[in-house]
Amino acid sequence: MKSNVKPKIVIIGCGNLAWHLVKHLFSLKTFDLFVYNHQPNALLNKFKMKLNCFTGDSLSKIVSDADYYFVCVADKFVSSVSRHLKNISSSSVVVLTSGSVSLDDLHKNSINKGVFYPVQTFSVADDINWAEVPVIIEGNNVYSVKKVKEMGKLFSKKILQLKSAERLKLHLSAVLVNNFTNSLYVAADNFISNEIKNKEVNFKLLLPLIQQTTLKINKMSPVKAQTGPAKRKDGKVIKKHLRIIKNKDLKKTYRRLTELILAQQNISSSGSKQKK
Amino acid sequence: MKSNVKPKIVIIGCGNLAWHLVKHLFSLKTFDLFVYNHQPNALLNKFKMKLNCFTGDSLSKIVSDADYYFVCVADKFVSSVSRHLKNISSSSVVVLTSGSVSLDDLHKNSINKGVFYPVQTFSVADDINWAEVPVIIEGNNVYSVKKVKEMGKLFSKKILQLKSAERLKLHLSAVLVNNFTNSLYVAADNFISNEIKNKEVNFKLLLPLIQQTTLKINKMSPVKAQTGPAKRKDGKVIKKHLRIIKNKDLKKTYRRLTELILAQQNISSSGSKQKK
Repeated sequence: MKSNVKPKIVIIGCGNLAWHLVKHLFSLKTFDLFVYNHQPNALLNKFKMKLNCFTGDSLSKIVSDADYYFVCVADKFVSSVSRHLKNISSSSVVVLTSGSVSLDDLHKNSINKGVFYPVQTFSVADDINWAEVPVIIEGNNVYSVKKVKEMGKLFSKKILQLKSAERLKLHLSAVLVNNFTNSLYVAADNFISNEIKNKEVNFKLLLPLIQQTTLKINKMSPVKAQTGPAKRKDGKVIKKHLRIIKNKDLKKTYRRLTELILAQQNISSSGSKQKK
Repeated sequence: MKSNVKPKIVIIGCGNLAWHLVKHLFSLKTFDLFVYNHQPNALLNKFKMKLNCFTGDSLSKIVSDADYYFVCVADKFVSSVSRHLKNISSSSVVVLTSGSVSLDDLHKNSINKGVFYPVQTFSVADDINWAEVPVIIEGNNVYSVKKVKEMGKLFSKKILQLKSAERLKLHLSAVLVNNFTNSLYVAADNFISNEIKNKEVNFKLLLPLIQQTTLKINKMSPVKAQTGPAKRKDGKVIKKHLRIIKNKDLKKTYRRLTELILAQQNISSSGSKQKK
């Protein structure tokens, strides 16, 4: 037996998640790492040079004897990419990493199919504290579950096994607090740039407030942390705000979220749907 | 002259902002502090015991020789509260602390009127890093501006003088990134509680993601930090999400913010309105 050959991990895709998975796996020093893209991509070179990966610019060249095949491509390509993995070892697990793709969307060619969905946002420049990132796992059989769980534990203290339908719900929640929240930051940034003439006033002024908003919900439930004119039902301030918003999209968004807060606070005070 | 009498500061109101203003002023040890409420309130005792304040449970008892009168009451009461301050010294400054109340709303009885609006959210339990909190100031005359600026510098490194109309715009921006963002946290919390049966899945799972969302905009502009199905124009995922949302308010909110992101990203890619 080849005793000093390390187990192999294949990553398909070379985006932000691929980068952070490989970066962490590289730090463990226990795997040989392979990164493939469906076509040449300048990013592959970074994986080779910085994280000591074998790289390939075509899916037809993928090695067949890896322990794990992580599919790190856009949701709509997961299915077609997994179809390429038809000649892999029967002990390999093909793993999807998305919040919204069903386990069944992995091609039926694969004997062992799994999910490894980290509930986190990834940009190349980020520092990721993997130990605290919840990793949602799933598998199509006992062996697959065991394998993705083992892999999950190399990353995080928080491994949770969920069915695809439940994972989709968690992914939706992540969209609310991450993508939608960020869109409000964009809205504020645009509003300040377009409407406030004083050059010293810019989006950065809001950073301490944004930071505190986040810290607060570490200590109390979000419904208790709610403040502001909508929470106080202060129609006068709401009208003042609506009067100074020119952008139609922002006006609609202001109205919608004001309505949302009013509904949330009513539910909360009646206690009829709030579980806490 | 009474050489060891300290200058006096009066705070009207005993809520969260009052608490943090007084707490900071107390730490400076250079003022005698007075806190008044329009009626008896158990919180007054905390100001007396913990922050060594003189307290009063009626606005008719307010001392007349303080340097500053901070009005820390709900927006709709600012005007009527300031009307009580008719016999104060001609060198006193009456200061409002709200983002959305105009300087002119302070009663004309006051000779010197000012604004001290900290762009921050305050709960009693919070630690406030005052040095980093932007403080927006304004005054009705040169003396008032000088006085609120002096006061601002005792709190923060970031003092900005803005007219009431510009302050209102900044306040609106703060509502977007603080109150509206928090309402999305509430929505996610409710959705998880109502829709995900697995008891290990709760809102706390999202905290590392929320934290990272915030850290990201310290390093890049929010429009660049945007990710998610709406950004990718991934209609399939958006439909999957809409299908699993039962709550009408949440469904409308999901649609609205998806539209907002589409509009923001179009503007950004066409470059027509984006200033950066």
